[in-house]
Amino acid sequence: MSVAHGEVAQQEAPRGQVAREQQVIERIERVRRARPRLREERITMAHGAGGKATQTLIDAVFLPRLGNPVLDRMEDAAELVAGGTRLAFTTDSFVVSPLFFPGGDIGDLAINGTVNDLAVRGATPMFLSAGFILEEGFAVEDLERVVASMARAAAAAGVQVVTGDTKVVQRGGADGCYINTAGIGTMIPGVRLAAASARPGDAVLVSGPIGEHGITVMLARGELDIDADVTSDTAPLSGMVSALLHAVPGVRALRDATRGGVATVLNEIARAADVSVVVDEAAVPVSPQVRGTAELLGIDPLYVACEGRMVAVVEPDGVQPALEVLRAHPGGEQAAIIGRVAADPPGLVLLNTVFGGTRIVDLLVGDPLPRIC
Amino acid sequence: MSVAHGEVAQQEAPRGQVAREQQVIERIERVRRARPRLREERITMAHGAGGKATQTLIDAVFLPRLGNPVLDRMEDAAELVAGGTRLAFTTDSFVVSPLFFPGGDIGDLAINGTVNDLAVRGATPMFLSAGFILEEGFAVEDLERVVASMARAAAAAGVQVVTGDTKVVQRGGADGCYINTAGIGTMIPGVRLAAASARPGDAVLVSGPIGEHGITVMLARGELDIDADVTSDTAPLSGMVSALLHAVPGVRALRDATRGGVATVLNEIARAADVSVVVDEAAVPVSPQVRGTAELLGIDPLYVACEGRMVAVVEPDGVQPALEVLRAHPGGEQAAIIGRVAADPPGLVLLNTVFGGTRIVDLLVGDPLPRIC
Repeated sequence: MSVAHGEVAQQEAPRGQVAREQQVIERIERVRRARPRLREERITMAHGAGGKATQTLIDAVFLPRLGNPVLDRMEDAAELVAGGTRLAFTTDSFVVSPLFFPGGDIGDLAINGTVNDLAVRGATPMFLSAGFILEEGFAVEDLERVVASMARAAAAAGVQVVTGDTKVVQRGGADGCYINTAGIGTMIPGVRLAAASARPGDAVLVSGPIGEHGITVMLARGELDIDADVTSDTAPLSGMVSALLHAVPGVRALRDATRGGVATVLNEIARAADVSVVVDEAAVPVSPQVRGTAELLGIDPLYVACEGRMVAVVEPDGVQPALEVLRAHPGGEQAAIIGRVAADPPGLVLLNTVFGGTRIVDLLVGDPLPRIC
Repeated sequence: MSVAHGEVAQQEAPRGQVAREQQVIERIERVRRARPRLREERITMAHGAGGKATQTLIDAVFLPRLGNPVLDRMEDAAELVAGGTRLAFTTDSFVVSPLFFPGGDIGDLAINGTVNDLAVRGATPMFLSAGFILEEGFAVEDLERVVASMARAAAAAGVQVVTGDTKVVQRGGADGCYINTAGIGTMIPGVRLAAASARPGDAVLVSGPIGEHGITVMLARGELDIDADVTSDTAPLSGMVSALLHAVPGVRALRDATRGGVATVLNEIARAADVSVVVDEAAVPVSPQVRGTAELLGIDPLYVACEGRMVAVVEPDGVQPALEVLRAHPGGEQAAIIGRVAADPPGLVLLNTVFGGTRIVDLLVGDPLPRIC
């Protein structure tokens, strides 16, 4: 696709309003006409970034061959019926580098990541699998540390690791340790969450300050001469989701903001529901450390991964109760309403900047922060 | 553990019978006294071989931390109850090298491997996840080939890939493509299969000639100057298992003979049920090509992986019907009774060799054929 990220339509509103809307409408048409195909002959880091290149890879390579009504929904977890029971099922591989970072490691990340994908689908996470790909020469002590961390995270989230697998590849065949987790949860009765159900007038909330995980991992690599007091936000969201869904009937959709950050999640919602999401930049909670580091790195915090934060789309009536529930829950103290769903322009995310302008927040093509999960 | 593989007690029977049994009893005591612990400070290829080192890794690192009543059963798949439905759940990562080989590739291997782990647990495979770890620079054409192969294998086994994930690691961080699949199946009503339920007098069957997958992959690497007309046996076992379980009520346990081959599976059964498994070497179906190549490589075909063969433990009354069902099923034409379950010596596998002797078939410590799945 030829539309670059960050295409700017920044101007004083309402001056140029008509021109901007025209430009947006034309862009939507361009996107719609574009048939997904992979122009690259070889896989690039961008294909794993969770943004536009990943979506194209899925649309061009995976869906045409493996597609089925369940897979095609492209939610964080698939919803299934097995033997009369409604289940959610999801998988994630973790290749984070480094393996250990302030606030967490690949072990709790692998548990929380899958727990969260189940939780935001409206399921109670129950059973996880764990597949390890270890590099020959990996320190057993490090493996023990990782497994202990998984055990703590599983206990905290109330899930059990019930099946596993270990493969070892030769030195140079993996970066120490990769972990895949898959997870099964039972759908909470009466709950139907879907990005596609967002409606104009709904509010968009985030459950806490964004970007802490991605910035922490980036700094933990030690390649940048930046010292900031940041800690990964890796945490299970299942408790918070359960509290929210039981208290507030008007929750339409939940998404955890991992690879690609809040910006990517909002784009997925806008596209799935064919609505616009309008974000108020000043309302987005970002810690000064994350903001400062992101600025030094030239990255917009909206694109930086969290591993314990979610985006919620809530009906107008549910907004205040939802905010109260989130803020009352540990980890949700800084929950905030960051924007709203609008009808036009469908499929796009618009940001009202702190400078008073408006710009399109697109999916990224490349990956400013590779291997953060 | 200090007991080496291949410890030989080969002699003319019944001469030396008493001495052999004494030796066996002492060995069992040694194994029983040995507390699992990892003597190595770093992961070796053997830890991923599915044999003794893998078991020690599981016993020393994973079970003490992640252990729970479901995981501790250590079957090919975990049996769960979710929302009142009995489910099987399993995972496997695939790191086979090369990715493409005669008769299959990493794609159908990844589907069939997980389908088979569910099937031999007595479940109907239904839903699979697929997690890809791709190396930067991997050819998109190869990925398309792998995914197409997964799609064909999924259709053949009657399962759907319902959720997925793609990560990309830098050049040198993976060997082209690793795939993890996890799978969910519904337990066939009334069926309870467990290695632990093998009883003296039961017969041991294999569903076809052994070792073809492992030998094929080994030769496909092109490192050996051996030319043999061998093709991987990768195939779904779910149809055969379903036919068997519906026709024969006396099936006690099923296992697909992957990493570590039939010998490893038989050891797991002997240990789980605290029985002996006595194998008649002459009865084990091995193709001349596999036998010849294994001989040149100095490997016992009993340890060579299959990816579409299973071992069945069947009550005396069910043996002939089971053999008939297996032989009538595509891929089962060469099914054979290869041995029987005995009471003593508990925990051990004995092989009556073609030379008239008897030797212990132990778990391997090392890995003669790394990365065959």
